[in-house]
Amino acid sequence: MRKRLVVALSGGVGGAKLALGLSRVLPADELLVVANTGDDFEHLGLSISPDIDTLTYTLAGIDNPATGWGRRDETWSFMDSIGALGGEDWFRLGDRDLALHVERTRRLRLGQTLSEVTSDICRRLGIGARVLPMSDDRVRTRVRSERGWIDFQDYFVRQQCRPVVHELAFDDVALARPQAEIAAALRSGDVRAVIVCPSNPFISVEPILAIPGMRDAIKASGAPVVAVSPIIGGQAVKGPTAKMMRELGLEASAAGVAARYGDLLDGYIVDHADADGVGHVGPQVTIAKILMKTLDDRETLARVTLDAADALASQR
Amino acid sequence: MRKRLVVALSGGVGGAKLALGLSRVLPADELLVVANTGDDFEHLGLSISPDIDTLTYTLAGIDNPATGWGRRDETWSFMDSIGALGGEDWFRLGDRDLALHVERTRRLRLGQTLSEVTSDICRRLGIGARVLPMSDDRVRTRVRSERGWIDFQDYFVRQQCRPVVHELAFDDVALARPQAEIAAALRSGDVRAVIVCPSNPFISVEPILAIPGMRDAIKASGAPVVAVSPIIGGQAVKGPTAKMMRELGLEASAAGVAARYGDLLDGYIVDHADADGVGHVGPQVTIAKILMKTLDDRETLARVTLDAADALASQR
Repeated sequence: MRKRLVVALSGGVGGAKLALGLSRVLPADELLVVANTGDDFEHLGLSISPDIDTLTYTLAGIDNPATGWGRRDETWSFMDSIGALGGEDWFRLGDRDLALHVERTRRLRLGQTLSEVTSDICRRLGIGARVLPMSDDRVRTRVRSERGWIDFQDYFVRQQCRPVVHELAFDDVALARPQAEIAAALRSGDVRAVIVCPSNPFISVEPILAIPGMRDAIKASGAPVVAVSPIIGGQAVKGPTAKMMRELGLEASAAGVAARYGDLLDGYIVDHADADGVGHVGPQVTIAKILMKTLDDRETLARVTLDAADALASQR
Repeated sequence: MRKRLVVALSGGVGGAKLALGLSRVLPADELLVVANTGDDFEHLGLSISPDIDTLTYTLAGIDNPATGWGRRDETWSFMDSIGALGGEDWFRLGDRDLALHVERTRRLRLGQTLSEVTSDICRRLGIGARVLPMSDDRVRTRVRSERGWIDFQDYFVRQQCRPVVHELAFDDVALARPQAEIAAALRSGDVRAVIVCPSNPFISVEPILAIPGMRDAIKASGAPVVAVSPIIGGQAVKGPTAKMMRELGLEASAAGVAARYGDLLDGYIVDHADADGVGHVGPQVTIAKILMKTLDDRETLARVTLDAADALASQR
């Protein structure tokens, strides 16, 4: 019998684009998106989960394509007002976006898990696919730069990725457990493919893989693991991936990303622009157009990725 | 030497109008506004203090004159969004207003007192007069109606004062202490007048007076206590005062309010429309135009009230 479940590991923008593509070419009950929560933080007393939110908004069709985060048709009265009251205003929270943070914070304080809150909000926003946090335990990405360790959002938003990154750490990851539904899915024997979305390897995918048992569970699922390169022509489409790779002493290339993932990958989708440099990488390479500008691009790349996984599965 | 300090007890709308008048005819350091916090509540995980906020916004000149609560130039994107996420939307929180609730909640969770938060926000909004909560201890007004006890905002906002009120209670008031600066001011020997603003006696002023020691401290201050009637021509200017008086078996009149305050009052300002009915009340009555439509009305009524207090003091 055909295996049905596609498990996609994702961070924010780039990952969410592919997740949207997958959600449009798969039946709703065949897609489980595992969201990075290493970027989560508490700000203004609110629990904020940037990658979950970008995924949620994107899959619900209410994302802001201009920014890559937050909601479309947004207003900014809250932000205009918070600074005058002494509140911090370096992290931009739109008025509509704020509703999600306030409601999530309220429910978490009542004792609901992040999974429960996320699932309910996805349902209310009409999202068919499952979006789940990588863990219901708290993990926090921190960055060691020339000025010492700083919180991720401080690095990413307040300092706009300017500090040189020497090292990353995922605080408390040793105590975190894979989210229960994710763990059950990987154990189910019904996983068709594990897809590593084109997100930043260091800050979006590795926090997921760093959860004790997650990498082994992916391997043990028996499903082919296929990544889509976040690098096109040696550049990140958006964000600091290439800059971070150079700062960490790695080759800022599609091949460098594959090397970083190591033996996790069975398949790797790279752009035509990077076709020459990936002959020597371990996984089986598929060359495709991976820049996702249109909805068609997202669906096409989703199909290419699934086809690559299915081809790998049929070779086993 | 002339005594300097004017202490005004206030709820929301009507009280805030007189507080604004007082703030415009007095030097900033001569006015202390004591705000009712019996209406405070936790909503959507946020700490909301409706009367403090109406006073703050009014004194800062950013109040919404159309509603009597909230901020002017407000937007409603948060409210438009919260319902779709499963959040409650019966209590209207504007996007700008929300900044105050989020920032206050954040600071209270850090361990600041409501007084500290309120003072700092007033300072940031350029308010010269002091606005302080009646207590830093939690007091919650509840209403017994035909359907049992309900929380105040449930009665006041969600049910729009429709239930018949049989009884009011101020939960935990027995454990509350007068806010420290207020207590010190009343003990200072420097109080020129205590003014009971034209707020609802039952839900705005009596929670303040119910704090153990508050009524005695007002009496012991030696200052004349002058109230402004919240009733004009047998009607409340805004809100459920007259309706509540009838439901509680009291005479819905300016005289009925004076009777309710009892021996607290030395002076009482009533409208020309109510001049006939107040001959028999205890305090010395001043007849004036008490409907405050314009800024001039507010200032004039403030002067009338202070003059009445000063006249009472000179008779002692």
